[in-house]
Amino acid sequence: MNYPNGLKKKTTTMQTTPVTHKNRGMNLEDELNQSNEYYREIDKAYIYKKPTPIKITKVDYPSRDKAVIKEAFFTVPSTTDYNGLYKGYYIDFEAKESKSTTAFALSNIHPHQIKHLQNIEKHNGISFLIVRFTTLNETYLLTTQKFSVFLNNSERKSIPIEFFRENAYLIKDGYNPRVDYLKIVDELIGGRK
Amino acid sequence: MNYPNGLKKKTTTMQTTPVTHKNRGMNLEDELNQSNEYYREIDKAYIYKKPTPIKITKVDYPSRDKAVIKEAFFTVPSTTDYNGLYKGYYIDFEAKESKSTTAFALSNIHPHQIKHLQNIEKHNGISFLIVRFTTLNETYLLTTQKFSVFLNNSERKSIPIEFFRENAYLIKDGYNPRVDYLKIVDELIGGRK
Repeated sequence: MNYPNGLKKKTTTMQTTPVTHKNRGMNLEDELNQSNEYYREIDKAYIYKKPTPIKITKVDYPSRDKAVIKEAFFTVPSTTDYNGLYKGYYIDFEAKESKSTTAFALSNIHPHQIKHLQNIEKHNGISFLIVRFTTLNETYLLTTQKFSVFLNNSERKSIPIEFFRENAYLIKDGYNPRVDYLKIVDELIGGRK
Repeated sequence: MNYPNGLKKKTTTMQTTPVTHKNRGMNLEDELNQSNEYYREIDKAYIYKKPTPIKITKVDYPSRDKAVIKEAFFTVPSTTDYNGLYKGYYIDFEAKESKSTTAFALSNIHPHQIKHLQNIEKHNGISFLIVRFTTLNETYLLTTQKFSVFLNNSERKSIPIEFFRENAYLIKDGYNPRVDYLKIVDELIGGRK
């Protein structure tokens, strides 16, 4: 049996029922991690999720080589969640899920993350948002350029779904990788050459 | 007063005594963080240290919006500590200090980090090690290419200081940035064109 990207089935337990996010029980982060792992396995791209930033305030050393963090706090991330390397390009993006069926609230993205995405674009990296509308089961890649167009032309506190449908790239569900966003990145790279 | 890079003094408390690491009380990590912050301030490069990877096993929620991590463990990093974007290039490196005056122990670098550095190089990113011999007060940038040459030609479990002196780039101490490693990266980029 051949899979969409021409690769042979690797495990014998792969599901053959239609792909929906509900029956897979994976969220966008899980699927992106799986996709990035797949990209690494086939030596295509080296993109990782950054560890969650925390501030450690108390550490115990029950033995010489062992440390147990006893108190720590989540801190506001200064950058985006994902970055890495693809075809010589620096890739940087933030990924978010929304339950809304009408719009993506801008409160999901910190202002300094927006600034970061814009800095990356300015310095010839490739940066974007991946937004999944979970209820609609629609996942979009929105380039920083289009995102900035929206921000510069609207006072709204959320981006309507119509804006995504007209200005972002729909990422189709896949088997492996589940979120094949590099297919879209290929188009972005093509547009630069 | 003009500083080495032609920039004017920004604060009035900048030290004028000779720069040594002892009297500054900063370690390599602090100095790299300061340097990267400086690079961002002048819109030169966007390179960050990744958060320390940890596995969180217990979280308390004393109130609705507040989370306190009550138990977590340090985990082995899958990649390097620093990555980012400079002049359109993906930059990736690991930084280590050594007290030795004779050699840098390879046990400081995990095998999968070496593999990661090599993958980056293969995919046209720029990757390297920054190693500071604290007792000697010598800081080197060793490219992954030269690092691999050593690994392929030696059974030793440490890299002798002589190898650094002959094959790596010495990074001179500076005021701002303190570790101006991008000056060396400029040479690496020049060599690629």
